Amino acid sequence: MRALVQLHDGYAGTQTGPDIDDLTPFVALRDIAVPTPGKGQALIKVQLAAVNPSDIHFIKGEYGQPRKSGIPAGFEAVGEVVAGDTPLVGQRVSFFASASGTWAQYAMTDVSGLVPCRADLSPVDAAGQLVNPLTAIAMFDIVQQSGADSFVLNAAGSQLGKFLIGLGRDHKIAPIAVARRAEQAEALRALGAAEVILTSGNNPLDQARAAFKNYAPRILLDAVADQFTADMFFAMPDGARWINYGKLSTEAPKLSQMGQMIFQNKRIEGFWLTRWMKDTDPARIPQAFATIQERFVTGDWITDVAGIVPLTKAITTLPQVLGQRDGKAFIDPTA
Amino acid sequence: MRALVQLHDGYAGTQTGPDIDDLTPFVALRDIAVPTPGKGQALIKVQLAAVNPSDIHFIKGEYGQPRKSGIPAGFEAVGEVVAGDTPLVGQRVSFFASASGTWAQYAMTDVSGLVPCRADLSPVDAAGQLVNPLTAIAMFDIVQQSGADSFVLNAAGSQLGKFLIGLGRDHKIAPIAVARRAEQAEALRALGAAEVILTSGNNPLDQARAAFKNYAPRILLDAVADQFTADMFFAMPDGARWINYGKLSTEAPKLSQMGQMIFQNKRIEGFWLTRWMKDTDPARIPQAFATIQERFVTGDWITDVAGIVPLTKAITTLPQVLGQRDGKAFIDPTA
Repeated sequence: MRALVQLHDGYAGTQTGPDIDDLTPFVALRDIAVPTPGKGQALIKVQLAAVNPSDIHFIKGEYGQPRKSGIPAGFEAVGEVVAGDTPLVGQRVSFFASASGTWAQYAMTDVSGLVPCRADLSPVDAAGQLVNPLTAIAMFDIVQQSGADSFVLNAAGSQLGKFLIGLGRDHKIAPIAVARRAEQAEALRALGAAEVILTSGNNPLDQARAAFKNYAPRILLDAVADQFTADMFFAMPDGARWINYGKLSTEAPKLSQMGQMIFQNKRIEGFWLTRWMKDTDPARIPQAFATIQERFVTGDWITDVAGIVPLTKAITTLPQVLGQRDGKAFIDPTA
Repeated sequence: MRALVQLHDGYAGTQTGPDIDDLTPFVALRDIAVPTPGKGQALIKVQLAAVNPSDIHFIKGEYGQPRKSGIPAGFEAVGEVVAGDTPLVGQRVSFFASASGTWAQYAMTDVSGLVPCRADLSPVDAAGQLVNPLTAIAMFDIVQQSGADSFVLNAAGSQLGKFLIGLGRDHKIAPIAVARRAEQAEALRALGAAEVILTSGNNPLDQARAAFKNYAPRILLDAVADQFTADMFFAMPDGARWINYGKLSTEAPKLSQMGQMIFQNKRIEGFWLTRWMKDTDPARIPQAFATIQERFVTGDWITDVAGIVPLTKAITTLPQVLGQRDGKAFIDPTA
């Protein structure tokens, strides 16, 4: 089979962020053997793979899991189960590849992670229904469980950010959206953002303080982890929780007001979907996927597509698609 | 009555740490009226007041509570209840002054916070039995509740640090002690420290890594909050909790490895005795004071005394006593 295989093992020890200009130092297009599923595993013929920031962190050796040289890259996709120890053989499923990556004609994962797709779910929605939508549902569960009536999210123009804003709007928990560019503000408000803080605007911290005064948000969902994020956290009210789930900035934020941890009962923690899936009530997962597919099919959520590149041309064309400001990139191994 | 009264209101907006060379910008010795207890309050004739880092932070306007000009400073003391809405009138009590401070001949606080003292409890132990001993008990409860079999503490040579080491030793939860000076190591080991990391020594982070390899501690009790504390936290194993309760350093530590919050489930939080007392089971408090007094009387815990200064001479003599490396300062308003 054709696959984009990793060229390195383990971690790089660098922290260069999710941008990439050139894939050739990290992956190569190769013909390799189709993997053979072992006990509890399924082989899936990949129809469409989603490309997430975590994929780029991973191939660069900067993600929380070690690389394996010679194994295909790519975490997330939709495809047809063609073999394995599961009644889902022959069905279309979304999945997160744990054993052999999705940037390939065939991928392999544990049967427990297969998510059957409704027939009316479009290929791009199906390809990307795990990482971003499930993260949105999971983190929004945390927001709801905290009893909040507002929350702050940054990288608000990202696919995940837009999903979170939609959930906030529909559950009447006011989303305070942090984004970079002025031209994003209107779209984010149209999606349901109660306030938009523009980091490229004047005095973004003053914008944040004004928004926090109106809404008193106590949860910050953070994909950036730069100094501005830390400064916002320290401008939030008593009891604020900074929940980090991504690292779009390469800055190491400084904790300038540690006393707030003591006197204002603030805390800093992380969110990792893999851990959430282990820790959460197992009944929540199929519920969440029913919600996710329903939201896509009804148009409550929309997948923004930056481009779909054929697997055989991904090395040359993927960086340009990833460089686009809005929308998600996909790899098509059938083309 | 004679009292050291505060000269300022509110916060200073500075962060200069717990050192002080000169009290005169912050407090003055004055003759003021003895306060009159209101409903639910007690008036106490102060016998001996303890001086804690929080007192210095407070008079400098750098603590989590606002100053009140004209009101005596000082949080903690022992004395005799002379008036108020309580059956404890006439008895010796330890207390934390909430209404009028302890650096005075008389102090005032809520009756709910009065702690009767055993007759065999010495004046210095009685004067300082709230802030440090109760903090030690409370934070050690957190250590025990976490199921840890080891923990890290810094400022280990402090009074509180020594109390924590004693608790760890007696409950067989290995204390890993972080201190500055080589000459402290032997004394800390004698008290029960399983390992001592010396920040003035060679490669303190390598010392920490070696200790963490042996003990895999998941709780860091932190009174310093400098960059070394952050670096230690990132060298700790999965699930580590950085619990900050003081700010002996003026550094703003940088979070160089935010990914650990996500992938290693680490978190940063604060501990404040006042909040703990509100949140904990009320039955735990008298239990804790019984333990504290028993430990002092039996010699399991020892109060190190740097010096006792008369209230009338505190302005000139307290800074020198506070400048001593080991032991606690006290103010005697009866002298």
